[in-house]
Amino acid sequence: MAQIDPNTLTRAVLDRLFVELEASARHVHVTAEQAQTLFGHDLTPQRPLSQPGQFLAKERVSVHGPKGKFHNVAVLGPARKEAQVEISLTDGKTLGITPPVRPSGQIQDSPGAILVGECGTVSLKQGVIAAKRHLHLTPASAARFGVRDKQVVKLQTFTDRPVIFEDVLVRISPEFADRAHLDIDEANACALGTGDWGRILP
Amino acid sequence: MAQIDPNTLTRAVLDRLFVELEASARHVHVTAEQAQTLFGHDLTPQRPLSQPGQFLAKERVSVHGPKGKFHNVAVLGPARKEAQVEISLTDGKTLGITPPVRPSGQIQDSPGAILVGECGTVSLKQGVIAAKRHLHLTPASAARFGVRDKQVVKLQTFTDRPVIFEDVLVRISPEFADRAHLDIDEANACALGTGDWGRILP
Repeated sequence: MAQIDPNTLTRAVLDRLFVELEASARHVHVTAEQAQTLFGHDLTPQRPLSQPGQFLAKERVSVHGPKGKFHNVAVLGPARKEAQVEISLTDGKTLGITPPVRPSGQIQDSPGAILVGECGTVSLKQGVIAAKRHLHLTPASAARFGVRDKQVVKLQTFTDRPVIFEDVLVRISPEFADRAHLDIDEANACALGTGDWGRILP
Repeated sequence: MAQIDPNTLTRAVLDRLFVELEASARHVHVTAEQAQTLFGHDLTPQRPLSQPGQFLAKERVSVHGPKGKFHNVAVLGPARKEAQVEISLTDGKTLGITPPVRPSGQIQDSPGAILVGECGTVSLKQGVIAAKRHLHLTPASAARFGVRDKQVVKLQTFTDRPVIFEDVLVRISPEFADRAHLDIDEANACALGTGDWGRILP
């Protein structure tokens, strides 16, 4: 019988049963036009993110709300059709903004904010949300876990402060890498560490 | 048959099956001596808290860490034998302090911080923790829920972002009022609203 490398086996089992958990820090998506206003040029990639094609930009912005502001906020690329500011409910208290908990892209009637870049300012009428926790899965992984697109599942975290998150939205695309995305409140509530895993509960 | 007031009945059923959830914002406990140093006098009650005998003091402090500080932080009374600073993991990032997740009172080898009051400053060598989520129950309620002191249970929240918190510590005393205490990260992770309820899972 062939030798099995224990690291390869461990990874294969983990990939089969679990999903890697990732915290999304507060960040901003902007349009190509807004990037010109804010920075005087297009977004420039600094490093790739876990989702293929997505990147952390070198550019940073300040986000201003009625009660407070955050400096040095991450901007993610590529540019989108609509700007979106993803913050935690905790961040919302600091800014004086109450973000609705929404899937990414659903920004209708959400509150706005002011973005300040090194070259200019953009006033958003809407776009501030707290991203609804969600799973990115490839079709193959979704089939393995027995879940379908837009299904809502429970996610058990194997973390220092274990939590079972209910109401976790499944998103499926061949473009995705398998990841569960939590915001910073959720990540801290379960004391998420780098490389921690979760399990989709039946 | 006697008329039953629906509000009374509803409350009785809720009390029987559920526990009210409460968020603990960042706060500080100080000794009587430290209150003198910080404020020049004893702590003065502003309003009672849900736990009998505990109060929010009129006095406020700043909490300083190596990376940042919080102003206007709540001080809870009565004075204790040892100072304790209860912050969230999110707060810890702002202060540049990594608080261990501990039950209240277990501050051995935890990080310190500097407290600044209107009259003076106290440098704590230890005492900064993130309070481990916990349930306060009377003995009668604990018997009803079938749990014992120091037991660890699951707590399901009936909140806008429903969560099942694992690893919730049960504390029982005739001095307590029935409450589940979450920190701000946990409260925001489940989108806790005032008066929301949770259920202890078997």
